[in-house]
Amino acid sequence: MTNTNRVITLLTDFGLQDTYVSAMKGMMLKINPEVKIIDLTHLISPQDIKGASYALYSSYRFFPKGTIHIAVVDPEVGSSRRIICAKVAHQYFLAPDNGLLTLVLKAESLHQIFEIDLKKLPPFDISFTFHGRDIFAPVAAYLSIGRAIESFARKIEKPISTLNIFSKVTKGGLLKGEIIHIDGFGNLITNIERKTFVEACKGKKPMVCIRGHSIQGFSRFYNEARKGELLALWNSSDFLEVSINQGSAMEALRAKQGDTVTVMKAV
Amino acid sequence: MTNTNRVITLLTDFGLQDTYVSAMKGMMLKINPEVKIIDLTHLISPQDIKGASYALYSSYRFFPKGTIHIAVVDPEVGSSRRIICAKVAHQYFLAPDNGLLTLVLKAESLHQIFEIDLKKLPPFDISFTFHGRDIFAPVAAYLSIGRAIESFARKIEKPISTLNIFSKVTKGGLLKGEIIHIDGFGNLITNIERKTFVEACKGKKPMVCIRGHSIQGFSRFYNEARKGELLALWNSSDFLEVSINQGSAMEALRAKQGDTVTVMKAV
Amino acid sequence: MTNTNRVITLLTDFGLQDTYVSAMKGMMLKINPEVKIIDLTHLISPQDIKGASYALYSSYRFFPKGTIHIAVVDPEVGSSRRIICAKVAHQYFLAPDNGLLTLVLKAESLHQIFEIDLKKLPPFDISFTFHGRDIFAPVAAYLSIGRAIESFARKIEKPISTLNIFSKVTKGGLLKGEIIHIDGFGNLITNIERKTFVEACKGKKPMVCIRGHSIQGFSRFYNEARKGELLALWNSSDFLEVSINQGSAMEALRAKQGDTVTVMKAV
Repeated sequence: MTNTNRVITLLTDFGLQDTYVSAMKGMMLKINPEVKIIDLTHLISPQDIKGASYALYSSYRFFPKGTIHIAVVDPEVGSSRRIICAKVAHQYFLAPDNGLLTLVLKAESLHQIFEIDLKKLPPFDISFTFHGRDIFAPVAAYLSIGRAIESFARKIEKPISTLNIFSKVTKGGLLKGEIIHIDGFGNLITNIERKTFVEACKGKKPMVCIRGHSIQGFSRFYNEARKGELLALWNSSDFLEVSINQGSAMEALRAKQGDTVTVMKAV
Repeated sequence: MTNTNRVITLLTDFGLQDTYVSAMKGMMLKINPEVKIIDLTHLISPQDIKGASYALYSSYRFFPKGTIHIAVVDPEVGSSRRIICAKVAHQYFLAPDNGLLTLVLKAESLHQIFEIDLKKLPPFDISFTFHGRDIFAPVAAYLSIGRAIESFARKIEKPISTLNIFSKVTKGGLLKGEIIHIDGFGNLITNIERKTFVEACKGKKPMVCIRGHSIQGFSRFYNEARKGELLALWNSSDFLEVSINQGSAMEALRAKQGDTVTVMKAV
Repeated sequence: MTNTNRVITLLTDFGLQDTYVSAMKGMMLKINPEVKIIDLTHLISPQDIKGASYALYSSYRFFPKGTIHIAVVDPEVGSSRRIICAKVAHQYFLAPDNGLLTLVLKAESLHQIFEIDLKKLPPFDISFTFHGRDIFAPVAAYLSIGRAIESFARKIEKPISTLNIFSKVTKGGLLKGEIIHIDGFGNLITNIERKTFVEACKGKKPMVCIRGHSIQGFSRFYNEARKGELLALWNSSDFLEVSINQGSAMEALRAKQGDTVTVMKAV
């Protein structure tokens, strides 16, 4: 017996003022009335593939086995860019082949990649501008009722597109990264992963430098710093985050996505 | 056996910062614990009935048979305006009688209209300011558990309120319309339907004019134009849309809802 | 047989642009795949405990018996502040012990308070910065599958934290209160409850004063006033609300949360 009580998640840059997201949900409920649909977020900045990659990475592992993730940040919709499906960690990830899955696929080295073959799907109307509704939604819904991915997709070998998203080990300093996401509290999330940091800083005393400020030492939680104080911590996804206790680091530092963050040796 | 695993959709101008929407959901779950509730959008501009009419039109047909749509954009709440229910295309539409259903009812010519008779409903508290929670939500929930619409509503003949929402055929040019919705990407959606356009332009070479710009020819998808280029296309609801590839037409043209869009004969 | 088809509601200041909320939902669906998750709102202003208390109060009673409410507005996350669970009116309320439950607990005098004892929960990873995902979500999910609150929490006697949130009876005038919430329409919701008002104004002719304006008499609904006119009414939660028919009282009065509202004797 197939379990159709599956979870499908949605991650897009469609915003919440339009009915684009709800049209996708209607399409899925037509095919699988039992499916549970969870919004990851729809407020990815328009066409911000890096931000979307982080958003997916920061949440996928909290979902049950069998979850199907749809990620549509897709500036090239309508062109010949491929639609891919990654099978990884007992979950599926549907996305345009534009690098959106970079962080997930790095974290889960055991994975298979498929390319959706539209000719193998039941015939339905496909608009030129809204593949989220016309392709991603029905494909995910068919997966959720137990249709095998192999029946409408062919396994492909890499390369697929990847983003240049990771921090780099540098000569002078230790690590050079950037802000990849600013959350709703104004916390600055960088592309510096704890594991990379630990390796690079072995035996050295590190200092986090950002927008002319330097921070020595890490806090465990926001309230461990004084109110209004700048702090660095490992966030709940194990990325380096720069924050202000009960304040907005974005506003205080006038920081924006893409700003450089370096880890230097403290003297 | 009645299928109670029904879908109810919600379309309002209530916004997302308050608990108005969630109170409606609680009311529905009390009456039908199995119901699936999908948000169309709650970010309709306050009291923008035209925008709401388009939002509903652009999404209803992607939902399963049996879906019940609640649309509450209701400046006259508490007054004697009627609450109507349209039965159309195997779906129900609940709305105040203020023209909100104009586009759906034009698209689906076979429909029946009912007026809700509150005296026939189980007695419950009705506030003067929040009929969404106190009337629309329970009525939809009762429909979702199989209660017949006839048991708490009486069939009415038209006229019900309609909006003056469609583009017009003009003498000098071909068509005169307006922007009825601007989506989250800054795409300008007009009230010019493909069908109307095709009839009006038969044998002529049309040109879309908007805010001092003219566009000749249609693109199929955004990325078919050059980056930053103004384009016209038929959107995923078959309305004329003016866009900029990877940019915001709203910002570039300083356009706003209600701005005139004309189709002229190209020389 | 335990009914696992329970409702869990979520109230946070996490916003909608990040995946914090969806990570919580994933965690709950892992533990209880049948649970129904409803968002109260996630747009509480960062760390606005008063606003959160009102939001919860204004909606909880519309939910079914057995509903579990999670409320996370938690400036002290990671510190030693307690996590409490109130059992009241056949519902559960999970919140940090910071006064967030003040309005609900005043309204429902029969209640029991528990303190969550993390040592009694199944072992799982707990980050320092995201208790919403790592503690609140699994605790609520365990309650939703019928685990007894007593098995991972101990009953405590008061005092728990409470907010100084209610209007006061004054000597010169009648009542002194403040704006505790401004809704998406710009309606100004005060902390003056109908019951308090009725007692304080017995036999006197009251006048509502706010930001240099005075209002005599109450409207029943917005449209009872003329378009653009300032009015006072009892809102759908029976709190005094100052509004403008088809307009924004917030903009017209340049009002903000915390502004004083008084009830005076009209001459």
